[in-house]
Amino acid sequence: MSQREEVAPNSLSAHRAAAAIRGGRLSSVALVEACLGRIAAREPLVGAWSFLDADYARQQAVQADERQRAGALLGPLHGVPVGVKDVFDTCDMPSEYGSASLQGRRPAFDADAVATLRAAGAVIMGKTVTTEFGMYADTSCRNPRDLERSPGVSSAGSAAAVADEMVPLALGTQHTASTLLPASCCGVYGFKPTFGFTSMRGSNILVPRLVNIGFLAREIEDIALFASVFSDDIRPSTPPLQPRRLAWLRGPGWGGVAADAKSALAAWLTTLPLAVDELALPASFERASEVAHALLSAHLAYRFGSAPMAEREGYCAPLLEAIAKGAALDAVTFIGCENIADGLAVAADQLFEACDAFVTLAAPGEALLRSAGPGSGAMTIPWSLAGLPTIALPLLKGGNGLPIGVQLVGPRGQDRRLLSMAAWMSNICNPSPPEAS
Amino acid sequence: MSQREEVAPNSLSAHRAAAAIRGGRLSSVALVEACLGRIAAREPLVGAWSFLDADYARQQAVQADERQRAGALLGPLHGVPVGVKDVFDTCDMPSEYGSASLQGRRPAFDADAVATLRAAGAVIMGKTVTTEFGMYADTSCRNPRDLERSPGVSSAGSAAAVADEMVPLALGTQHTASTLLPASCCGVYGFKPTFGFTSMRGSNILVPRLVNIGFLAREIEDIALFASVFSDDIRPSTPPLQPRRLAWLRGPGWGGVAADAKSALAAWLTTLPLAVDELALPASFERASEVAHALLSAHLAYRFGSAPMAEREGYCAPLLEAIAKGAALDAVTFIGCENIADGLAVAADQLFEACDAFVTLAAPGEALLRSAGPGSGAMTIPWSLAGLPTIALPLLKGGNGLPIGVQLVGPRGQDRRLLSMAAWMSNICNPSPPEAS
Repeated sequence: MSQREEVAPNSLSAHRAAAAIRGGRLSSVALVEACLGRIAAREPLVGAWSFLDADYARQQAVQADERQRAGALLGPLHGVPVGVKDVFDTCDMPSEYGSASLQGRRPAFDADAVATLRAAGAVIMGKTVTTEFGMYADTSCRNPRDLERSPGVSSAGSAAAVADEMVPLALGTQHTASTLLPASCCGVYGFKPTFGFTSMRGSNILVPRLVNIGFLAREIEDIALFASVFSDDIRPSTPPLQPRRLAWLRGPGWGGVAADAKSALAAWLTTLPLAVDELALPASFERASEVAHALLSAHLAYRFGSAPMAEREGYCAPLLEAIAKGAALDAVTFIGCENIADGLAVAADQLFEACDAFVTLAAPGEALLRSAGPGSGAMTIPWSLAGLPTIALPLLKGGNGLPIGVQLVGPRGQDRRLLSMAAWMSNICNPSPPEAS
Repeated sequence: MSQREEVAPNSLSAHRAAAAIRGGRLSSVALVEACLGRIAAREPLVGAWSFLDADYARQQAVQADERQRAGALLGPLHGVPVGVKDVFDTCDMPSEYGSASLQGRRPAFDADAVATLRAAGAVIMGKTVTTEFGMYADTSCRNPRDLERSPGVSSAGSAAAVADEMVPLALGTQHTASTLLPASCCGVYGFKPTFGFTSMRGSNILVPRLVNIGFLAREIEDIALFASVFSDDIRPSTPPLQPRRLAWLRGPGWGGVAADAKSALAAWLTTLPLAVDELALPASFERASEVAHALLSAHLAYRFGSAPMAEREGYCAPLLEAIAKGAALDAVTFIGCENIADGLAVAADQLFEACDAFVTLAAPGEALLRSAGPGSGAMTIPWSLAGLPTIALPLLKGGNGLPIGVQLVGPRGQDRRLLSMAAWMSNICNPSPPEAS
């Protein structure tokens, strides 16, 4: 055994764990047991899981090891435990979308994404905590880097579980910020691919034109392995690729960015071995948040506005507010918002005539104290609306020593190149201490 | 010269004319001159054209003949005159979308469809009469089969010009019924391909998810030749294909169908050399017209609702009514309509598990007297909403001896098969005299 594999199995990255299992140096049972041990120790503090049946996880691991011994073809995630945000249906676990209104719901079928993971050999470890229907609300999950702070939302449990070494991989989703914001807050990688990357059937779809899968992991190589399971276009190993032309931009959320986060990004940019010019963003992007929230509100009012009053009374406040706002929206305004979103996708494509990719912050700063809310998603909304692939890289630290993500954004459909550029950045960059805010 | 080519050139079908030109037996100049002669004689009665510059048409024909003599590669429509519904932009002719508000408008660029026609060698004969912005309104165009009757709408001039042998081919569009209804009324073939068949850039797009190109011609072989210019999937010659399983259905517009039209269809079905069972349509299709009109109204309110009052005052009554209706529509209802439309596309796909294609009427009867309006589009709306390819075949006659179209509808994306089945029907079927209504 190499020195590397002497670390506790739950601390292993997914690609190392998968290789160790494949090579017979680690069993899925041992890996899952280590993860369960970590969860037993930490879950009472962190609260990342909405459903976890340790025996059922062990049972899947046993079966994985048996299949391997029987000479079965091994999928790329054979025996590797994965956390699944509880907005994906699972045929064998509760699927409650974070809502009391769906308590005990057990759908008959797996979401397509879950079925894909099973086919790749993954152990579905359990369901991770989400805000109600993925709304912008609080959860009881805590940030494992600092338990007094929020892990970000809405893929809170997925980011926390990965950051805390409870599992090497977790599925998230993102309509506006729900993968990159918690990734930034918890100091892990969070990748939202190009819109339409994989089927979202069997998941909580709020806005069809915004919904996306999200991948959370502790290493960039794991993101590539994870995403490769869902697309032949992504390679399971990621050769680093230095961008020829890299730009940075502030984006419409910049006014809300903390001073220490700005300093950390500026300092980090100077460490790169190429010139990084600032990119001016067309004015149309200024309306991205407004447009995204209007589309979201209208779809929420459509979906939840006619639910029985007894059910609606239990909804979280942000959902109720959105329903009310959406019910008051007229169709002409809605069409206008859809047209603006279409226009942003075109405008974004033009941005990449000046650069191969651009960087900005993935969140406006470090994770907030829980009393201050989950933090703003303004840094990612425009790229979600434009359908661009985007990834948060845990390369910065703020004034409290907590992680802040660098966000790397690329052209639609160039997800593989984006991951290669992210690998290059991860390889050359070490988190540098920030200036105090 | 064969006997066939002794007919007046303007009476030739497009594929025969194109072959004659290619073979040196007919010049484009002679063909265009014959069409201009027919137009000079008939246009004062029919009124199919909103713009026609005879000298400019001759000039294009002269150039086509010169290019041929110079040995240029010949496109599939080399030297063949085509009428273009005036909802397509043309860089060299007025493009007024049938609206006084756009009088004298001359766009700088061709619509993509027009550019495609030019690249195929066609002579752009002129612009044909459309209702204002393709709305469901009257025009001054008359039905060449009976000048007291409406040619149907909104591709009125295109259908009338083809039926009256002014041109062998004309472009139309269809959001709900605008190609098949006038084709049925005027007794020509009218084909609306699968949604998304070709780019509609540079045309009057009312509802992005409904807008479609339409092809009008007097022979089924011409429809295939015409459509093949726009898609490699369509073959310029159409081998007849007998459907294995053909069904017929009434559709949600059946309540408004005239008795003579019902009889004509029933009699025709008995002449087919295969059993044609009646297909039950899922109840969701009953709402197709309501949904299509809601989507249309909302988009019209978005597009025209904020136009200057002086401009709006000139709009036709149906447009003003739609704007008012759309302005009052809420976003939730709009999303519901879009979801119903999505559902119809899925439901329609399932219909074709029981048959290769189905037939119904293309219109509720013969062309109406002009005082009675342009006729209902209810027979085609559901298939437009579901994105299905559909073609009107001039195979029936009503109680007044006027044409009624058989409508043949197939699965999405199987346009080539649909045209082959339409060719089979056209070959075996002779219009049979109807029973009196």
